Amino acid sequence: MAVAKKMLQFMESSSWIRKMFEEGARLRKIHGEENVFDFSLGNPNVPPPELVKTKLLELMEQDLPGKHGYMPNAGLPETRAAVSAYLCKEHCVAVASEHIVATCGAAGGLNIILKALLDPSDELLVSAPYFVEYGFYADNHGGILRTVPTNADFTLDLQAIEQAVSERTKIVLINSPNNPTGQIYSDTAIEKLGEILSRKSLQYGRTIYLVSDEPYRKIVYEGHDVPCIFQYYANSIIVTSYSKDLSIPGERIGFVAVHPGADQVEQLMGALSLANRILGFVNAPGLMQRLIVALQGMCVDVEIYRRKRDRLVSGLKSFGYELVTPPGAFYLFPRSPLPDDVKFVRLLQEENVLVVPGSGFGGPGHFRIAYCVDDRVIERALPGFERAITRARTMLREGCQ
Amino acid sequence: MAVAKKMLQFMESSSWIRKMFEEGARLRKIHGEENVFDFSLGNPNVPPPELVKTKLLELMEQDLPGKHGYMPNAGLPETRAAVSAYLCKEHCVAVASEHIVATCGAAGGLNIILKALLDPSDELLVSAPYFVEYGFYADNHGGILRTVPTNADFTLDLQAIEQAVSERTKIVLINSPNNPTGQIYSDTAIEKLGEILSRKSLQYGRTIYLVSDEPYRKIVYEGHDVPCIFQYYANSIIVTSYSKDLSIPGERIGFVAVHPGADQVEQLMGALSLANRILGFVNAPGLMQRLIVALQGMCVDVEIYRRKRDRLVSGLKSFGYELVTPPGAFYLFPRSPLPDDVKFVRLLQEENVLVVPGSGFGGPGHFRIAYCVDDRVIERALPGFERAITRARTMLREGCQ
Repeated sequence: MAVAKKMLQFMESSSWIRKMFEEGARLRKIHGEENVFDFSLGNPNVPPPELVKTKLLELMEQDLPGKHGYMPNAGLPETRAAVSAYLCKEHCVAVASEHIVATCGAAGGLNIILKALLDPSDELLVSAPYFVEYGFYADNHGGILRTVPTNADFTLDLQAIEQAVSERTKIVLINSPNNPTGQIYSDTAIEKLGEILSRKSLQYGRTIYLVSDEPYRKIVYEGHDVPCIFQYYANSIIVTSYSKDLSIPGERIGFVAVHPGADQVEQLMGALSLANRILGFVNAPGLMQRLIVALQGMCVDVEIYRRKRDRLVSGLKSFGYELVTPPGAFYLFPRSPLPDDVKFVRLLQEENVLVVPGSGFGGPGHFRIAYCVDDRVIERALPGFERAITRARTMLREGCQ
Repeated sequence: MAVAKKMLQFMESSSWIRKMFEEGARLRKIHGEENVFDFSLGNPNVPPPELVKTKLLELMEQDLPGKHGYMPNAGLPETRAAVSAYLCKEHCVAVASEHIVATCGAAGGLNIILKALLDPSDELLVSAPYFVEYGFYADNHGGILRTVPTNADFTLDLQAIEQAVSERTKIVLINSPNNPTGQIYSDTAIEKLGEILSRKSLQYGRTIYLVSDEPYRKIVYEGHDVPCIFQYYANSIIVTSYSKDLSIPGERIGFVAVHPGADQVEQLMGALSLANRILGFVNAPGLMQRLIVALQGMCVDVEIYRRKRDRLVSGLKSFGYELVTPPGAFYLFPRSPLPDDVKFVRLLQEENVLVVPGSGFGGPGHFRIAYCVDDRVIERALPGFERAITRARTMLREGCQ
């Protein structure tokens, strides 16, 4: 056998998102590109703000010495300073440049956090449904992913979290607005979560970190606000990217910010920077680091996403789908009309509608719709969604599901 | 304790290159920027070819849909096709697009290779002196780095390699032109190495991979040629970057290419692509992937590096330093005039000359000079090199070293 045994397993159980991607390719060949309605991938379809292009052109015209050269592993001083200035304003906590590491997107950021913090068999606690990559990230660094269910409306079940935190828990990871549910956790919930973690850290005599993965922070609707974890808990770390704000996920730029009051914060920053180096990122892509200096706080027009969400939610509800209207991100997570979500996803596939089963996110009995697609795709897919739920109901009635 | 125990250890034994970097900052504060002669970092100082700027401007002007969006984890089809076409020509082996993965530099490439291949406690065999990051990379993925010495002129000691390959060896990693020695391994050596690995794979009943880390392939002098491992061994993998060819190390772009005849090559490609995803790279930076499509085979003017090398080599030799004139890369690895290389490096520091002790590369009794610096730095540092060897000789004579 050539490949590592673990990787072989991973490939065999390869993610649902990928399976859907492959199914999409197959269906497109048969039915033509325009007749396949692909809601499987969270690839932002709103174009980047015009300023992305303008600033990149400006940067390219400037002849800075060493413009594309190596830099400190934590990032360019001006990038870290710009992020720090913005965070001070946005999060009302004095985060200095030294508390920032520029990263290869949020995925790179999460990996350096886990590398920096996890000892073998340390646990990472996540509320399910959750972004399926978290399991791989924990495993990369010898950690173990544990999940705890959310409430039915996908808000945090704080009691369940409190019960699940053990002497092995090193990190509680939240993702708000959430992928796959679009839910946002409230200030009250984060405040209480902070209290739980303070209590538990004291009880077990070791620091439990709160890590907030928030690449969808700016993708929120109707004035919803995402709480700043830094206001509620000192041993906290924010990780995010510019992928969704600026529609540049392929460019791999994000950052990790550590609360200035975290335990032994200097040591932690040193470990994050070293992790960035030795995991092979070395530093976040240089040109993109320069770009974001000028684009702090900027975001694509989220009204475009809101209109897509509303069209789908009202359509689906009119057909009888049950779902929570999500306040953020660009995902819907409806209840599956059949108890077996994989079976229902297959019904949708027969309508050339591609979505991901909730089972792929630790949320069985649901399915995920990534609505960052053309309006046309939504309009043309709706009849398929209607036919699928009708068929599901018939199957349920006839007891043949 | 906050940080993972292993990371704490790593930080305490933090690399010599970093120590020198910090020492440099300290000395610059005292003596002024222009009076510190820093040969510690391999940061290319020859500016990128003009075409890097031209092509990036062109790319920025083009309005491609989804230009900055997600893409397959292995990279853009056009990037993989361009690399494949170039490799077919350069290496005389039919490497297809499907055998290429675009990576976050060579460091990212090495990490996905090790993630894809290493089972726990599998060994990675490297000839010392070696690039010190290899030890971290092996450890990231549960592997173990074993070293075997080179010959005195830093060529491969094939007999030593043959003896060191065991039933635990999964990968033999070579780096040619070499960092820190600048040595290039000959066609004959690679051919024999291939024979050894074929024999040993058969003997132990498992595939042993030859991995060639070759970011300095184009930084060679006087018509020296770097052999193509693909011509000599089927279970082989090339990993490289555009960092040195194009002087863009901060942009993090490179690739992994697998020999089309490798065992279960499709499975291996799947594992590399999955590793790129789950280690958090997701994909190599998109804009740089587009850039390199047009710049295959391009390289900075290596004559500039050759002149620097020659000036330093002749200067150092005239003072009595013993060294092999390296045919490639931009490093010299002279013998330390004191048996204790760390002590001699301190003597050079007192002359405001910063180099890295060979001990930091598993090559004690030597020191590394990265000569990718301004000519002025070389000229002004030479008197310090002379005074240091003179002092070392006095110390040796007086028996006080």
